[in-house]
Amino acid sequence: MSVFDTTLRDGEQAPGNAMRPEQKLELALALEALGVDVIEAGLPSSSPADFRATRMIAERLTTARVATLSRAVPEDVRLAVDAGGARRHQLQILATGSETHLRWKRGIDQATAVREVVDAIDCAKRLGVEHVSVGIEDATRGSDRLLHELVRESVAAGASSFAVADTTGCLTPAEFGALIGRIRAWAPPPVVISTHCHEDLGLSLANALAGVQAGADEVQASLAGIGERAGNTPLEELVAVLAYRGDAIGATTGVRTEGLQHAFELLSAAIGLEAPRNKAIFGVNAFATQAGIHQAGMLRSPITYEYIEPFRFGRERKILVGRHSGRAVLRHVLTELGLPVDGSFVDSLYEEHVANRTNGDCLDMAGLREIILDRHAALAGADA
Amino acid sequence: MSVFDTTLRDGEQAPGNAMRPEQKLELALALEALGVDVIEAGLPSSSPADFRATRMIAERLTTARVATLSRAVPEDVRLAVDAGGARRHQLQILATGSETHLRWKRGIDQATAVREVVDAIDCAKRLGVEHVSVGIEDATRGSDRLLHELVRESVAAGASSFAVADTTGCLTPAEFGALIGRIRAWAPPPVVISTHCHEDLGLSLANALAGVQAGADEVQASLAGIGERAGNTPLEELVAVLAYRGDAIGATTGVRTEGLQHAFELLSAAIGLEAPRNKAIFGVNAFATQAGIHQAGMLRSPITYEYIEPFRFGRERKILVGRHSGRAVLRHVLTELGLPVDGSFVDSLYEEHVANRTNGDCLDMAGLREIILDRHAALAGADA
Repeated sequence: MSVFDTTLRDGEQAPGNAMRPEQKLELALALEALGVDVIEAGLPSSSPADFRATRMIAERLTTARVATLSRAVPEDVRLAVDAGGARRHQLQILATGSETHLRWKRGIDQATAVREVVDAIDCAKRLGVEHVSVGIEDATRGSDRLLHELVRESVAAGASSFAVADTTGCLTPAEFGALIGRIRAWAPPPVVISTHCHEDLGLSLANALAGVQAGADEVQASLAGIGERAGNTPLEELVAVLAYRGDAIGATTGVRTEGLQHAFELLSAAIGLEAPRNKAIFGVNAFATQAGIHQAGMLRSPITYEYIEPFRFGRERKILVGRHSGRAVLRHVLTELGLPVDGSFVDSLYEEHVANRTNGDCLDMAGLREIILDRHAALAGADA
Repeated sequence: MSVFDTTLRDGEQAPGNAMRPEQKLELALALEALGVDVIEAGLPSSSPADFRATRMIAERLTTARVATLSRAVPEDVRLAVDAGGARRHQLQILATGSETHLRWKRGIDQATAVREVVDAIDCAKRLGVEHVSVGIEDATRGSDRLLHELVRESVAAGASSFAVADTTGCLTPAEFGALIGRIRAWAPPPVVISTHCHEDLGLSLANALAGVQAGADEVQASLAGIGERAGNTPLEELVAVLAYRGDAIGATTGVRTEGLQHAFELLSAAIGLEAPRNKAIFGVNAFATQAGIHQAGMLRSPITYEYIEPFRFGRERKILVGRHSGRAVLRHVLTELGLPVDGSFVDSLYEEHVANRTNGDCLDMAGLREIILDRHAALAGADA
């Protein structure tokens, strides 16, 4: 399947995430190096910065395809082509995909909404755009009547792909899968169907996977899931699921896991985004443990509590000592340092650095080794 | 269905999350006030602090049931009963649920693993514990042979519930649902089946929901999803799904949405946990928007981009002005202030505060009003 990255468009448009064109280019090249298939650069008509970023990215990508978003108006389409060119450019036209949006956002009827999309597709085709896509906004609240007409008329006008957007993040996986199944039936291959899911209910990844299992060819995702409100399907989670459980989903990707952390660090530096404490793959604690029961297993074999391997994601395993640690980690470090594992010495270390720890912070292995060596030297000195 | 909170046990045992007993009590009472059915207080045998916290929480809960975790050894069970009492106490015994854990963590065989659990159940029953539960660790990597014997013998010994743990977070929703379905068949009601899912692949919520749809009666979750590594099923997302889409899942809960943010703020203060920028319900941006296309809709009617209502979660809607905003929000504030909507004034505001904004930060509505009033006063002064 194809992986479509929207870090630089949906991700960037959320509060606090605006980037300079040079930063967007650097991220686009990092995403391309990972093997991402399509990279959405922005909404070129929205600002001179988005226009310039799109042009820079389109000029520099060599293996990934550039994508843009345009409102369904010829002026937006022309600007997008000016910025992104016509070849290897996936130009997405924003279609109004629900009666709620027709009425409350646009104030137009279904016929007008379909016509503006068909006109915008015509415009893009006349400008020689190779890949014309229709992004169906709020599709998950639209009626089949509206969606079917949009899809049918868009295909007839020359659209070769659709992004089905769960704009408000309101569907469950079973429902989103069923919607993708219906659209797949209306637009069989070689038309490409892409998922664009939001995280408002915490289901953006599960919904995307349900979409893939129902026939979608592509998933739109973003680094760390940045995007409107709660964000989008996180790219790193999508890639991890495909790397480890592609068999269960029935899909594979060429996106490599190894460079994801580097790309996240670029993003993090560009927009001042901190890694959450607990989050899959990029979380501060994603590969860390301090609890005694877990550590006793981890010190025997990491397989006991580690299914996702940190080194495949550019991360490191961390064994930390905190108030929930046990004696196993203390004995382990003593053995590692070639010191005798003396019961009363272990007990005194445990009392001081585990049981009577007053706050939530943790010691890492280097800190623990230092403490043990100091204590051991002091004891040896006292004995002498 | 029943909601089981593990913020104070699995959540607390992750690095950085250790709390004082008084802080745990305060959180337990806030969770009870939300309507959470079962509140896991800790692993009483692990430390004097966990023991004391469990005792304080057990003494103070009036509507929620207290839960604890014990290794499958009589000493742990006795300590848990000392701390949590026998009545209204869901005492969970940790069972070794996979061949991987039998071999690499425990170094014991299946018969020994089953026997220690049965002995621990016997011990708890003799001590008069009302609700004896078996937490099957690493169940998602265990063979049916092991799991079936564990479940059968535990029920025979008097266990009234099971927590099925996806300890390493390795399953997809379809697989986890199928596992719950098999266990449900081995242990029909009134035995309670609970899900305990981890977020390593980003699927802890979807897996829990698949478990509920396959017959689970209870979900274990934690505030903000804190817990080992990437964490657990986030309580706030579970509650949001049940509040908004309980129809689609086929389940309901008595847990109220309104106090979730307050409980998160208590947790946040206790362990220094920052809200992630993009995260469902608790995210900084979960109910915020700066993008022009979205704001144009939101200013007409919030229904356009808002499915989850912020006020139901103790949050506020935020319309922010940043580099992706459009002119609609500027016109809106002018109208709101009773000022004329002058095209060239709007253009100059747009140039200065939107298009030429150099960084990612945003203005809020109060800041925008202030700027507009200042600019308007200056223009009026110049005209006079």
